[in-house]
Amino acid sequence: MSSTFHQVITDVDQNLWIDSLELNEQNLSTNSSSNWEIKKSTLQGGLQQGIDLIEVNNGNFSFAVVPTRGMGIWRGSYSGKTLGWDSPVKDLVHPAFIELNDRGGLGWLKGFNEWIVRCGLSSNGAPGNDVIVDNNGNKAEVFLPLHGKIANIPARFVQVQVEVGTPTTLRIRGIVEETMLFGPALRLTTEISTELGSNKLTIVDEVTNLNTTPEEIEMLYHCNYGPPFLEEGSQLVAPVKLSAPRDQRAQEDLISLSEFRGPTNGYVEQVYFYELLGDSSGESKVMLRNQAGDLGTSMSFSLEQMPCFSLWKNTASLKNGYVTGLEPGSNFPNPKRFERENGRVVLLEPLTSRKFELSLEVHVGSEAVSEVEKEINQLQGSTSPEIFEFAPKNLSAAS
Amino acid sequence: MSSTFHQVITDVDQNLWIDSLELNEQNLSTNSSSNWEIKKSTLQGGLQQGIDLIEVNNGNFSFAVVPTRGMGIWRGSYSGKTLGWDSPVKDLVHPAFIELNDRGGLGWLKGFNEWIVRCGLSSNGAPGNDVIVDNNGNKAEVFLPLHGKIANIPARFVQVQVEVGTPTTLRIRGIVEETMLFGPALRLTTEISTELGSNKLTIVDEVTNLNTTPEEIEMLYHCNYGPPFLEEGSQLVAPVKLSAPRDQRAQEDLISLSEFRGPTNGYVEQVYFYELLGDSSGESKVMLRNQAGDLGTSMSFSLEQMPCFSLWKNTASLKNGYVTGLEPGSNFPNPKRFERENGRVVLLEPLTSRKFELSLEVHVGSEAVSEVEKEINQLQGSTSPEIFEFAPKNLSAAS
Amino acid sequence: MSSTFHQVITDVDQNLWIDSLELNEQNLSTNSSSNWEIKKSTLQGGLQQGIDLIEVNNGNFSFAVVPTRGMGIWRGSYSGKTLGWDSPVKDLVHPAFIELNDRGGLGWLKGFNEWIVRCGLSSNGAPGNDVIVDNNGNKAEVFLPLHGKIANIPARFVQVQVEVGTPTTLRIRGIVEETMLFGPALRLTTEISTELGSNKLTIVDEVTNLNTTPEEIEMLYHCNYGPPFLEEGSQLVAPVKLSAPRDQRAQEDLISLSEFRGPTNGYVEQVYFYELLGDSSGESKVMLRNQAGDLGTSMSFSLEQMPCFSLWKNTASLKNGYVTGLEPGSNFPNPKRFERENGRVVLLEPLTSRKFELSLEVHVGSEAVSEVEKEINQLQGSTSPEIFEFAPKNLSAAS
Repeated sequence: MSSTFHQVITDVDQNLWIDSLELNEQNLSTNSSSNWEIKKSTLQGGLQQGIDLIEVNNGNFSFAVVPTRGMGIWRGSYSGKTLGWDSPVKDLVHPAFIELNDRGGLGWLKGFNEWIVRCGLSSNGAPGNDVIVDNNGNKAEVFLPLHGKIANIPARFVQVQVEVGTPTTLRIRGIVEETMLFGPALRLTTEISTELGSNKLTIVDEVTNLNTTPEEIEMLYHCNYGPPFLEEGSQLVAPVKLSAPRDQRAQEDLISLSEFRGPTNGYVEQVYFYELLGDSSGESKVMLRNQAGDLGTSMSFSLEQMPCFSLWKNTASLKNGYVTGLEPGSNFPNPKRFERENGRVVLLEPLTSRKFELSLEVHVGSEAVSEVEKEINQLQGSTSPEIFEFAPKNLSAAS
Repeated sequence: MSSTFHQVITDVDQNLWIDSLELNEQNLSTNSSSNWEIKKSTLQGGLQQGIDLIEVNNGNFSFAVVPTRGMGIWRGSYSGKTLGWDSPVKDLVHPAFIELNDRGGLGWLKGFNEWIVRCGLSSNGAPGNDVIVDNNGNKAEVFLPLHGKIANIPARFVQVQVEVGTPTTLRIRGIVEETMLFGPALRLTTEISTELGSNKLTIVDEVTNLNTTPEEIEMLYHCNYGPPFLEEGSQLVAPVKLSAPRDQRAQEDLISLSEFRGPTNGYVEQVYFYELLGDSSGESKVMLRNQAGDLGTSMSFSLEQMPCFSLWKNTASLKNGYVTGLEPGSNFPNPKRFERENGRVVLLEPLTSRKFELSLEVHVGSEAVSEVEKEINQLQGSTSPEIFEFAPKNLSAAS
Repeated sequence: MSSTFHQVITDVDQNLWIDSLELNEQNLSTNSSSNWEIKKSTLQGGLQQGIDLIEVNNGNFSFAVVPTRGMGIWRGSYSGKTLGWDSPVKDLVHPAFIELNDRGGLGWLKGFNEWIVRCGLSSNGAPGNDVIVDNNGNKAEVFLPLHGKIANIPARFVQVQVEVGTPTTLRIRGIVEETMLFGPALRLTTEISTELGSNKLTIVDEVTNLNTTPEEIEMLYHCNYGPPFLEEGSQLVAPVKLSAPRDQRAQEDLISLSEFRGPTNGYVEQVYFYELLGDSSGESKVMLRNQAGDLGTSMSFSLEQMPCFSLWKNTASLKNGYVTGLEPGSNFPNPKRFERENGRVVLLEPLTSRKFELSLEVHVGSEAVSEVEKEINQLQGSTSPEIFEFAPKNLSAAS
């Protein structure tokens, strides 16, 4: 038998918004001995002024959802291990301070410090000009800044759910709309959940075209890790069908593709594009593990939903932002125009939706890590990974 | 005998601001049996965070003024009939989230969902490059985004007035300033009023050049209607001297110029420019009426103040934004440069003002509607409307 | 013996922020008869919504620090004499409303009304394209808007200090960070202080490169004065090694370089670049004095820290913004690219800082004013100022 507790945090249609909230075993019994908690607060001061933050702790695994920044996940912690990274941008930046078109379309980087941040919905990837049909029915060139808008739009609906059962599930639901007249009208509906005591976080997203005309979408999950998951000798474990360096810079270290450097002053980012292998139902899994192989974090997703996987190596100095991004997506983060030309932009029919699901797990101890390695090796099976020395023309706009 | 109740809501000079307020017959007697109300609230959550809203209800007619969005009028209701439209943008968007120069200067469309929104003050119309004199006295090219800034500037002074009399008048006064160093310094002073029980809303605006040097202004009232005023077979009733399609797309339906389609998926907007006829003192009137002719809404204004009238047909699907805009203005919504070249940009001498007045009425029942039609027919008189098949060169930048 | 009272106003790391505060002799004894006060408030309404303001009064000298606008100083007052000017922009504008790239990169001017505003940190000066190295290690052209970002970034740490002693010092400390991934990560640490009863305000700033890679900085203090310090016949008293007009417009009045006009309708700004003389330790001083020579305000700074001094004459009408800017800086306010080419952009080595110190004094009475004149004359000594009729090629991008 299960019962579900609901608490709306934000509902713009009802002009409803809650400043703060604390839920835990003391005020909401789940018959658990877990030290679970859901805490909603409103940040004040500096660039954080007015940011809604929801901190979820399942007893072992905690993470912070940011409704004000498109329901991104700021950072997490499992058994004292930090999930996320240390960006030069220290604060959670309220979208009001972000001018996406600044600095040649790189304004997004002034708010970028999340563990998991969605890039999309209408576009993502490198800045560039695109051609759209404007309100007069004419072709018009518009500039699309880096990684789109969704991370800088506050949610219009946020709800906390505690589904009491065996096990009990903590869930944050949110709705974020990226809309305008004469343009994309897209809705993101997200459910971010975890079970009490578990090592796992699940994101179930749905992107809906609210228009009665077809609309394009691009979705990419920029999942970013610094220490302790990333360190010298850390490895990406992935079932690879093919992989290609984005550009000449990425070619340089092709020989150590799956391995990471320690913090390296002056390091220039390296990006690799992958086609992964999956199981019979198309599910794939990748893991980032530390050098010793006794700590790892894995991501599971569907290759049908997200056929493109990008690896961002940015093993710069700790101060400059030592980080790697594991990025499953519906496309590669090239300029949208390039992705469209190469058939990787999703066209959403009128009033239809597309689902994106992502599970993230933390694995502590050699046994746990090697079990996941085995699982991924099974996905690899007897297929030899094809590693391109140069990216094929259709993969990288920078090749 | 009359007395007037005043309540300041916002006065930046005094650092005065009121979070919420409710006035009605119970706490402010007007010796009326009317169920009138003025309600000031502050919205919270999502894109609405921090929006000031003033809802006015004269007993029959209600409307919502938005000080935070340049004293625009979000939506209204008369006898259960909605004035306004259903935009893909659902929320009242705080200006902090708007980047006007986004997407080729179409950022304005990310906050566009009002019933009545002013376009101006320094410029309005389609985005485009303009040449100004810069702070060094040199000519410089600047890009002017769609429809200018005034709709995304919060009012620095807001006052509620209840003028008790026969009849009693409810009035919202506001001051919005569009200023910068080395550029336009323009003040909008607006009075939005209605009498208890009436079917009428009056806007009296004054635009003042605060500089001691001449400044240009452009002002257009973007008044937008969806159902039930707009439906298949709805008609624009107007006293027409001349009319011209903006472009080829508008030409297509020139034969049914005054009539509206039902919601049409994939519809591309059609815009027509008008010179209207007025009475001996230059007053003109237009009406949008439904198919049956038993519901209409009319607008009255001075052709001296606003010699240019534009009709925006956007009978797209209901979800995409089924709407028509009736747009009296000092100019047509072409790029400012084009309007200047054709003598339609107003030059305000130093420290002088220009008035803009607009009355909006709702007409329920065949009798009421046909009375207004008669009135407009009288303005038409024996003059035959001149309908251009192609816009003359000086009317449309897109022709 | 001295003791120091500390009160944190904002600390983003602790999610700490104080809405309001009042300190004075009544609630914090300094054993002084002075009517000193420190008052922190949060502004509401219009463009000021959410602005933090700290008003400091040492008994004779008061000034208002604005943490929300990069720790700028809005305005001051000494013995009833206003320090600052009357901009067409009346309100303290919250950075959320500023789009720096608007209007050809002049968006900064929509919030410009401070007495003292920093221009920087990564760039300042006229808008223009610059070439940077992007995240891919490639050269990329980016547009840098007018005067940089620091004035539109809220402080992440603010602290009030009252150092009780003989004399007692009032001090506001603030930290503002201008950071992004793949770009400058610069920290401004400022201390703004005054002693009880004194005529002096001291700013001690430190700019730190938080990256482990070298970063460029530009810093300029835009100190702006209207009446009563600026009037017809006011003079700039300065120890001049060389001076040059920025452009042809500035050449026109070269003969009256040190003198100011009264409010002049239609006046177009004139800018002059200076190399100043200093004492044996490189300290220099300039003064703006009124016509009668009985009121003046001086600025002291180090030529090693700020070798470039710019004079901005904008003696327009009172309404349009009658003002002069005295602007010590690490560079001249040309586009950054030009300044770099001419060796005036500071390169900050990894994790190092550069100090900028500025003292401002007010001088009332002929005696006080003439004493400062003598001091400045001594700095001039026997050196004849070299006044260029045309700016040398390396000084002005507009020459």
